[in-house]
Amino acid sequence: MKLVTYRASVEAASSLGVLVDDLVVDVAALAASQGVDLPDTMLGLIDAGRPGLSALRDCLDQAAGRFPAGTAVALANVKLIAPIPRPRKNIFGIGLNYVEHVAESAASLDTSKDLPKQPVIFSKPPTTVIGTGDGIEHNRKITQQLDWEVELAVIIGTTARRVSQKDALRHVFGYSVMIDVSARDNRRAGQWIFSKGQDTFAPFGPWIVTADEIPDPQGLELWLTLNGVEKQRSNTRHMLFKVDDLIADISTGITLEPGDIIASGTPAGVGAGRTPQEWMWPGDVLVACVEGIGTLRNPVVDATPE
Amino acid sequence: MKLVTYRASVEAASSLGVLVDDLVVDVAALAASQGVDLPDTMLGLIDAGRPGLSALRDCLDQAAGRFPAGTAVALANVKLIAPIPRPRKNIFGIGLNYVEHVAESAASLDTSKDLPKQPVIFSKPPTTVIGTGDGIEHNRKITQQLDWEVELAVIIGTTARRVSQKDALRHVFGYSVMIDVSARDNRRAGQWIFSKGQDTFAPFGPWIVTADEIPDPQGLELWLTLNGVEKQRSNTRHMLFKVDDLIADISTGITLEPGDIIASGTPAGVGAGRTPQEWMWPGDVLVACVEGIGTLRNPVVDATPE
Repeated sequence: MKLVTYRASVEAASSLGVLVDDLVVDVAALAASQGVDLPDTMLGLIDAGRPGLSALRDCLDQAAGRFPAGTAVALANVKLIAPIPRPRKNIFGIGLNYVEHVAESAASLDTSKDLPKQPVIFSKPPTTVIGTGDGIEHNRKITQQLDWEVELAVIIGTTARRVSQKDALRHVFGYSVMIDVSARDNRRAGQWIFSKGQDTFAPFGPWIVTADEIPDPQGLELWLTLNGVEKQRSNTRHMLFKVDDLIADISTGITLEPGDIIASGTPAGVGAGRTPQEWMWPGDVLVACVEGIGTLRNPVVDATPE
Repeated sequence: MKLVTYRASVEAASSLGVLVDDLVVDVAALAASQGVDLPDTMLGLIDAGRPGLSALRDCLDQAAGRFPAGTAVALANVKLIAPIPRPRKNIFGIGLNYVEHVAESAASLDTSKDLPKQPVIFSKPPTTVIGTGDGIEHNRKITQQLDWEVELAVIIGTTARRVSQKDALRHVFGYSVMIDVSARDNRRAGQWIFSKGQDTFAPFGPWIVTADEIPDPQGLELWLTLNGVEKQRSNTRHMLFKVDDLIADISTGITLEPGDIIASGTPAGVGAGRTPQEWMWPGDVLVACVEGIGTLRNPVVDATPE
């Protein structure tokens, strides 16, 4: 299933929806029409676990493509927001997780040319999250080096503490797309949170695809264009640390919880690694896609204070 | 006021309390006894803003030290938990924020000997938080270098985006104590989240002192003992970036929100900086204190998997 968080109108509260062809079906409303109780938020559905997803599938089966008035609306007529608009903790970001990106980063930034022996983890606060279509804020008073990174996002479904690599994927609720926006000139003494953690620096969505539809997260093409020109293209098979590895590794020390998000790293082709280097400016438009999941489209907007 | 989160018994749900001498007064229960509605969680009270604190003060004034049955219990008879048991995002940690600690870190770890020009920021997930008395978990399979750091914790009261240094302290709800536990051998490619972000690595409390009682956060002695032996002693006046600086700086790019926590850095005397180096092991007991706020006491416990 493709699960969305959306507003049916500008003034409407956000709702949890499921895509059925080009319709957004309101999960809680559909369930209510069948006398069933289902959550009205993505985090609520994640917390409901496998029984929640099963109940939602049953509702869809019972509807059989015929949705009562008020429970479905055309995708074109809703405003999608980030599938989890407000994560419960910082997003876990993974650095240097594709071989060629390790090389371009070592050549252009201050990272080692050696492949990392363990996942390199950083974080992005919940205030970084925006949905597809929302503006990435550029503040020219603090950065002249705004960069892009397309990534496969992994959404955790069940608590994972010290799980084995073999069991790790059972803890995944689903997958999505994230752009890990980075102000390269805002790194500080090697710590990345200020360069990657600013407001609007995590376009996320357009939806979550449930894990059952992505049996192998390590065979997905991913790419990114800037103003229509392709800048990144690779495949998740080239990750140094695969998704199961990342979950097992993090969970050795940090308990992963339902709703946690892991941005699993970006391939080569970032602006910092190009000759000459390229950066994003207001008016630019980023499009980022992961095969089998979906496409984010986000403009860069000027947010320089007076 | 000193505000606590506590359980009246092992089975009880957690409550929000205010210390009055050696009594813990249940905020919501006291308010209810006067026909007033006040939150029953610390985050709820923070969200209620200045009107919430004023209403609580009015309730205390009206009680005049005489608390109805069921609204107060002896501090000695409650279990204090972390004042914010579950922050809404990762804690903002500040590295290298006391001059002598910059020197000892450069000599023993991989950081620069130059004073940082801007605050060095990292993060600790909500799952790091424990209260006073709770065990700091030692997993000898992943660390042999568990270290201590006593810090002044700053709790944000109101949203701060691009605030000036002059206005910054108005956004502070209160202050507390945090131990920034660090597994020095778990740094990865310079990123600190895995070394500082493991479960139980943020003892926090024992309470929050509201900002009105700490007019100058830059004149507080702070110290830490390990098994009764003093390891750290300094004063917050020696911070490189003062609390107002930290808030103004972070808020240039990252919006600070009510309930956010900033651990403002540690002075010299950490285990990594000693000759020979010293580390913590199961059975050790840390006591950490910030003048005018309170004292944390946390044992180290073995949590090595079989």
